[in-house]
Amino acid sequence: MSDTEAARCSAYWELQFTGDRRRARVPEGREKALDLRPQSVMAAAECRLLSGPEASAVLEAADTLLFDCDGVIWRGEAAIPGAAQLINRLQERGKRVLYMTNNSTKTRAMYTDKLRGLGFRAETQDVFATAFCSALYLQQKPAQRGKVYVLGAEAVSEELRSLGIACIGPGPDPLCGAMGDWAALPRDSDVGAVLVAFDPHFSYMKLVRAAAYLRDPGCRFLATNTDTRLPLEAGAAIPGTGCLVRAVEAAAQRTATVIGKPSAFMFRCAAERFGLDPARTIMVGDRLDTDILLGTNCGLRTILTLTGVSTLQEAESHRDSGEADRRRLVPDYYVHSVADLLPALD
Amino acid sequence: MSDTEAARCSAYWELQFTGDRRRARVPEGREKALDLRPQSVMAAAECRLLSGPEASAVLEAADTLLFDCDGVIWRGEAAIPGAAQLINRLQERGKRVLYMTNNSTKTRAMYTDKLRGLGFRAETQDVFATAFCSALYLQQKPAQRGKVYVLGAEAVSEELRSLGIACIGPGPDPLCGAMGDWAALPRDSDVGAVLVAFDPHFSYMKLVRAAAYLRDPGCRFLATNTDTRLPLEAGAAIPGTGCLVRAVEAAAQRTATVIGKPSAFMFRCAAERFGLDPARTIMVGDRLDTDILLGTNCGLRTILTLTGVSTLQEAESHRDSGEADRRRLVPDYYVHSVADLLPALD
Repeated sequence: MSDTEAARCSAYWELQFTGDRRRARVPEGREKALDLRPQSVMAAAECRLLSGPEASAVLEAADTLLFDCDGVIWRGEAAIPGAAQLINRLQERGKRVLYMTNNSTKTRAMYTDKLRGLGFRAETQDVFATAFCSALYLQQKPAQRGKVYVLGAEAVSEELRSLGIACIGPGPDPLCGAMGDWAALPRDSDVGAVLVAFDPHFSYMKLVRAAAYLRDPGCRFLATNTDTRLPLEAGAAIPGTGCLVRAVEAAAQRTATVIGKPSAFMFRCAAERFGLDPARTIMVGDRLDTDILLGTNCGLRTILTLTGVSTLQEAESHRDSGEADRRRLVPDYYVHSVADLLPALD
Repeated sequence: MSDTEAARCSAYWELQFTGDRRRARVPEGREKALDLRPQSVMAAAECRLLSGPEASAVLEAADTLLFDCDGVIWRGEAAIPGAAQLINRLQERGKRVLYMTNNSTKTRAMYTDKLRGLGFRAETQDVFATAFCSALYLQQKPAQRGKVYVLGAEAVSEELRSLGIACIGPGPDPLCGAMGDWAALPRDSDVGAVLVAFDPHFSYMKLVRAAAYLRDPGCRFLATNTDTRLPLEAGAAIPGTGCLVRAVEAAAQRTATVIGKPSAFMFRCAAERFGLDPARTIMVGDRLDTDILLGTNCGLRTILTLTGVSTLQEAESHRDSGEADRRRLVPDYYVHSVADLLPALD
């Protein structure tokens, strides 16, 4: 497959997965409550290299910067060189820096430890990860009655329990019994929601259980995020939560409400807590279909960094497509690395 | 969820999953080679109850009847009452009866044993199941070089090996190692195809391995079928192969070539072997998006039976939709049970 074909294929898949679902990803009624900058008055994003005086002006005009983590400020366990200096300098200049990640494998406390270990200044309240935001959603929209069946890591249950929400599910669930038994597996009658997160213990039995709970139309169906790739170090990646969401959606014949980017709920969690002004907030990310689309959805300025998943070629291909849906994936600016913004703060 | 909503939701999902993919499901170049009855000269399917003199005339005009199995002639381990009598009578009247199932959990030999055990007359050559047809496809289109990584039951490897195709994969593959290791799991360098079938041992590790093999654009990507539900006895069902296909497609960012119904390849396997005339062949099935669509795709007469997955309401909703894509899911006729056709043979 040539690079061009690969980019086209990737663009196709992004649209397949984000296209018709975009509205479904914004939890119901949220857009109205959120004071978003009207799309019509925004200039069309051009995906321009951000550097020189323009970089200084763009950063100067912002109160808050939202940073995605994987592929933006670190890759796996290694910080992107210069990222910590940038973020610490932004904070010294009085900017608010928040961390906004779709990764559901860690609690806010675990992220804070990781950030500090890699040299970033961070408080727990600065971290918006999907495990925590899913717990917030379940607590608020409306308060979850009964337990949550979690396909995900222990971090998810930990965040849920910290907000008083009971859950079951994490850990292995290997095949048991014969095919005839699987339609009648024992169920916990107190389960009122299914939450799909990144689950390395994902198994056919878990798929059967999730589908069984979701047969009840009163059972809520959430997904932390729909990223199909989870980036690791050195450009490697493994299948992401989105692959599992696809399987459960197909089994349940229902569409999950997605908590993570590009759903506006992630931004709203931060915006409500800190009184953010979308017009003075920048989203910095490495994925067009999550980070940049979140920015477009919420009326933020957007900067794509090329140290992660999406390529400049993909962004330009969306920009030049002439298709409205694809245009929403185009960032205002791009940088090769967030460290390239350091001179703009001198 | 009301019945109407459920039907609408189900129709939506059928289209979501069959819509854009319909062409991809017909293995390349097959339509031309197959002498299909031109769609333009076919009368629009009306989904009429088939009974009385019309039933006699329809059966009289057919040389061959293709029967789906689950939900049509049996449910789980129990035969549909009267189905064996019908099929045996059809054979006595000189009709050819073939069994065409998307279920990949059994070899042809296992199906023949099951059919005979439930009172049906059957020879191994009369059975077209997706495990066998996938092996045929891999043998012919073109001959598979290297091994096949199978997500599926032992029956699939058995059919592959019986046609001289080496494979690996069936059985449990539980989580091992830490996240950092998963992108570099040991791979068999001789694998040249991935085949997704019904795999109750499906796990995250299998998803990782499948995605890793499929990163090579030269690695073929097949799925036995895309049914999202596998019906069991008494109306129960468990998640079907289609759910697993969705997960692997999302992980690989590629679309699988589907062997089973509604792909014309299933019909072609039978048509080539027995010299079938599409205009004198009837497809009898319980699913609109597999059985009936196969019939439409191949220019066959179609009969929906209501003992399985799809409902009359769904068929009528497609018929009355005025949408060309949905019209292709409408059968010519329906019966409440295949046993209702018995009087037509008196």
